[in-house]
Amino acid sequence: MSCGTPRATLEALEEYIARHSNWGRWGDDDELGAVNLITPTIVRDAAHGVRAGRVVGVGLPFDQNGPQTGAYGRMNCLRYSTATGTDHAAGVQTLMGVDPPHGFGYADDVVVLGLQSASHWDALSHIFHDGKMYNGRPATTVTASGAEFCGSEVWRESLVGRAVLLDVPAALGVDTLPDGHAIDADQLDAAAEFGKVEIREGDILLLRTGKLKRARAEGWGTYAGGDAPGLSYYTIPWLASHGISAVASDTWGVEVRPNELAGAFQPFHIPALVYMGLMLGEMFDFEGLSVACAEEGRYEMFFSAPPLAVTGSVGGPPGPVAVL
Amino acid sequence: MSCGTPRATLEALEEYIARHSNWGRWGDDDELGAVNLITPTIVRDAAHGVRAGRVVGVGLPFDQNGPQTGAYGRMNCLRYSTATGTDHAAGVQTLMGVDPPHGFGYADDVVVLGLQSASHWDALSHIFHDGKMYNGRPATTVTASGAEFCGSEVWRESLVGRAVLLDVPAALGVDTLPDGHAIDADQLDAAAEFGKVEIREGDILLLRTGKLKRARAEGWGTYAGGDAPGLSYYTIPWLASHGISAVASDTWGVEVRPNELAGAFQPFHIPALVYMGLMLGEMFDFEGLSVACAEEGRYEMFFSAPPLAVTGSVGGPPGPVAVL
Amino acid sequence: MSCGTPRATLEALEEYIARHSNWGRWGDDDELGAVNLITPTIVRDAAHGVRAGRVVGVGLPFDQNGPQTGAYGRMNCLRYSTATGTDHAAGVQTLMGVDPPHGFGYADDVVVLGLQSASHWDALSHIFHDGKMYNGRPATTVTASGAEFCGSEVWRESLVGRAVLLDVPAALGVDTLPDGHAIDADQLDAAAEFGKVEIREGDILLLRTGKLKRARAEGWGTYAGGDAPGLSYYTIPWLASHGISAVASDTWGVEVRPNELAGAFQPFHIPALVYMGLMLGEMFDFEGLSVACAEEGRYEMFFSAPPLAVTGSVGGPPGPVAVL
Amino acid sequence: MSCGTPRATLEALEEYIARHSNWGRWGDDDELGAVNLITPTIVRDAAHGVRAGRVVGVGLPFDQNGPQTGAYGRMNCLRYSTATGTDHAAGVQTLMGVDPPHGFGYADDVVVLGLQSASHWDALSHIFHDGKMYNGRPATTVTASGAEFCGSEVWRESLVGRAVLLDVPAALGVDTLPDGHAIDADQLDAAAEFGKVEIREGDILLLRTGKLKRARAEGWGTYAGGDAPGLSYYTIPWLASHGISAVASDTWGVEVRPNELAGAFQPFHIPALVYMGLMLGEMFDFEGLSVACAEEGRYEMFFSAPPLAVTGSVGGPPGPVAVL
Repeated sequence: MSCGTPRATLEALEEYIARHSNWGRWGDDDELGAVNLITPTIVRDAAHGVRAGRVVGVGLPFDQNGPQTGAYGRMNCLRYSTATGTDHAAGVQTLMGVDPPHGFGYADDVVVLGLQSASHWDALSHIFHDGKMYNGRPATTVTASGAEFCGSEVWRESLVGRAVLLDVPAALGVDTLPDGHAIDADQLDAAAEFGKVEIREGDILLLRTGKLKRARAEGWGTYAGGDAPGLSYYTIPWLASHGISAVASDTWGVEVRPNELAGAFQPFHIPALVYMGLMLGEMFDFEGLSVACAEEGRYEMFFSAPPLAVTGSVGGPPGPVAVL
Repeated sequence: MSCGTPRATLEALEEYIARHSNWGRWGDDDELGAVNLITPTIVRDAAHGVRAGRVVGVGLPFDQNGPQTGAYGRMNCLRYSTATGTDHAAGVQTLMGVDPPHGFGYADDVVVLGLQSASHWDALSHIFHDGKMYNGRPATTVTASGAEFCGSEVWRESLVGRAVLLDVPAALGVDTLPDGHAIDADQLDAAAEFGKVEIREGDILLLRTGKLKRARAEGWGTYAGGDAPGLSYYTIPWLASHGISAVASDTWGVEVRPNELAGAFQPFHIPALVYMGLMLGEMFDFEGLSVACAEEGRYEMFFSAPPLAVTGSVGGPPGPVAVL
Repeated sequence: MSCGTPRATLEALEEYIARHSNWGRWGDDDELGAVNLITPTIVRDAAHGVRAGRVVGVGLPFDQNGPQTGAYGRMNCLRYSTATGTDHAAGVQTLMGVDPPHGFGYADDVVVLGLQSASHWDALSHIFHDGKMYNGRPATTVTASGAEFCGSEVWRESLVGRAVLLDVPAALGVDTLPDGHAIDADQLDAAAEFGKVEIREGDILLLRTGKLKRARAEGWGTYAGGDAPGLSYYTIPWLASHGISAVASDTWGVEVRPNELAGAFQPFHIPALVYMGLMLGEMFDFEGLSVACAEEGRYEMFFSAPPLAVTGSVGGPPGPVAVL
Repeated sequence: MSCGTPRATLEALEEYIARHSNWGRWGDDDELGAVNLITPTIVRDAAHGVRAGRVVGVGLPFDQNGPQTGAYGRMNCLRYSTATGTDHAAGVQTLMGVDPPHGFGYADDVVVLGLQSASHWDALSHIFHDGKMYNGRPATTVTASGAEFCGSEVWRESLVGRAVLLDVPAALGVDTLPDGHAIDADQLDAAAEFGKVEIREGDILLLRTGKLKRARAEGWGTYAGGDAPGLSYYTIPWLASHGISAVASDTWGVEVRPNELAGAFQPFHIPALVYMGLMLGEMFDFEGLSVACAEEGRYEMFFSAPPLAVTGSVGGPPGPVAVL
């Protein structure tokens, strides 16, 4: 399929896969991946670390003004009304065939929602390598009927714990990072130092590049699918050694584009998602969070973002949780 | 539309509307309603109250095995694959028209999701009374294009705070409550006492009736739209005086069915949602939470359940949040 | 809503409405409109007029390469596979939970189809004027639940009969008509003469402007919703006096854009569709038909294009019929 | 996958495949199949055969009252309004952000349409056998992106010609056929004789069993997917020798259920659709046609039913055509 692939790229892939694969680490049946690193103690300590009680949303809204262009078959979501206030006001709304009593009226709606269309987690069933997905399962378990394993629903009570915001442009003293900027391990350390925050095992990494800020100012353009700043392929060892449980960024694919490895397509996804079992959060909105962290002087936080539990889905916008 | 309505029902509606309406309480422009009662201090204290660090999901999965029957035009969600592992495994998957390099493959999907089909919040744009919705806005602001005000997106950084589980059947010493059982104020107090938990202003009330447990055992039947145990209409003053910010239950409509007021349809919704601005969470799953609370001996908790931020939507399954 | 409207425009609308309205002409309960003009004799004679037995499709395909841009909330259709050949080939397809026997496999799909997105008929429930639709019914009969009257299904055995192709650019000796070109009654006569065809009562008019040919060469651009050649507003009397039963064109809206009447939006639609009950076919593909008519030396034909019978729909891509 | 398959079933499949396969008959690139048998002369003669000019629809409406139960992932279609008359009547409708002038209003809608959910043609990409589809193409050409070959769009100017109604229950002197009734070659001949109609090469066969009549009286039940009267597997030679171009029936699968071959699933589909390239029309409505044919004393007709041209779709409800 890809004769003439530069040997260096294959070597780079093979090296990290060999060194950092987590297949089998949490059992042969595991579907959760690196979020296994988040222990109850981590969750409790993260909750206790809350100081201001300030809540900041980090998801994009889902509507026709979103980033999608139709590339990769992805579209911005379509919301349809199945009952409206105008029908109620016109007196033409019925309830199971009869007039609603006592002035009662209602509205209802439905959404056609591409599960990778705005803020979402890549489930571990989203990416394959050489016919396999996370933990060695065959790619053929993800069919027209959905994902038999690692569907979004398996994380319905996970992705809750301690997060750190690495505000890379703030740490580097620039407004936003340019497309093609590969964030390396040193810059991750610099951003942690800027936030006066220690990186710990089980951390959910929130990576701000400023790309979303630029898209808001300049229009979406190729935000969803084009060039972007992002993690260098070579940060894989840093993520592994720090025991990161998940990474979310304000770009469409977390990793830098154009890709660093010759002839590759999103090569970081292969060792990170397929082999390490690292959930990747994409198109999150960290603009408000960046302001809030600066104001509070604090870059670590309690974080709660389980995906919408659409059974068998390979992508999931975040959902509900109760924390005792 | 409803000549011959028993005077008693209209009086009951009018009385609670007059006494408990919050229109204007948080400003004429307010769209958030009773969740305004959740202060940063409440959020912080709730986080600090976490003891075990145990995370429990309280949402139903979204799939064809859900509770909907088509009644009210509502259906269980439809998930479609736009890229599959079998296509990757067969070597027929392309990426923007070319073969993916280095064994790369991917899956993608889309969901057609009725926003009231499984666990969800009723947005304050969901119910109307006499041509108006919460805070006095005209029902005609909710059109085929969606809700101009009080769409789910306005709660994207709310519905996070302290919650208490009122496990009514456990408190009453029964397995589950029968359909038609109206939970009154005394039973709410009894459930709080059972859980050794004080009800405070700003609390999110998680109301377990056991209806979902029965549906799991016996089949969905008319779970979504039929008879059910639930809050008595006459608990409105209790909810108002305790400063409850939101109520979620394990039934399709929070309130008891058949309804208590003669000839009415979901009368509790009118003073509660339209006038008090109380978000109602429906078809939540408190079975695991009930077990966890009993094991931990604790019925208060930190809670995070902002709705999926579909712009202009009148119902919202829950979503993501970061807590500093 | 429209203070300061030029008097001339209102007068133009009122004049044609007064002179050409068909409300009540075929009974107060009529939902079919001008297609009532197509008699069985017309159908039989049209069938007998067939000479070559040549079949020409005149509909656009429905896919993501279509003309829509999202304007007016319209999108190109989305097709999703619910079963695939790759799943069959991988041996992972099941039938009601068991392996299909004897090498049996299948594919299935579903489409999310905007009913005005490509070739379609405007149903008589599609356009309103001053709160009313065709035959004087209130606009409030078209709700979130669809059209109570004049849904596409009422034409499921209609729109079959004699059609004439008026190939206006061919008649005028040009390749295609420019945007803004208003086809007037003289040009309609010239096109009929060019085709050596008599216009008769009950005829379905197929109006070729060449706009689609340009869109194919130059890209869709604003094909769906922008400027276009088309019928002059002032052809209404010509259509009425000739007893035309329906008009289909190769543009998005049949009538010329920019509109001729000051400050109006698609003014031709008001007397034609709302008052005369004239079905308007939009975005039909007459390129192949233009070639075929020229080769056969014949511009009249048997025509069969009942809309897809989606109950209560206000737009309908064409459907099936049997002719005895 | 199917060890222990009775030898008789495999033999029956192999025999008919060997004797009746049309792979290569119309070229190695052919996608159309048996409709190649419909010549222009056949189309012209069929048109000339029209006597009464009477038009009869033979498609089911598409709505929530349709036959689907969710089995095989198929659902009745969902229609959503994207603009309504009530919004217009309430004065809250806008056009590209501004108030529509001169009382103009509109409605629009969209449908989520399972392409096998009501009346439709099985495209030749719908069924596979041993990894292959019609004309020997690999099943892997039908992916999550749709059918690369034999998508519904290839028949956009076909399935028009001469049809004969074989009203089997009428011919047998019964009201409707019972489930499990296998229509054999003799009964096909009897039905032709009853209709005083000669079967000719290129004919489209309309097969009435009366199953739809029963479903209308008794409820859909398992109409879509369950037991039914239908063609015997052993009519394959009759269909081949008569040069039938397509078969449509008033049942969900054309062939008799339970199937006649031990352990098989829809075995008729394999030689008929995969090897002969025979389009199968399912869930057509021949009730009105049965009445009309009896009244007219005529069981042959001109027929026009090209499928909706959804590119790459494996099933297609019928569409538009012009006949010169």
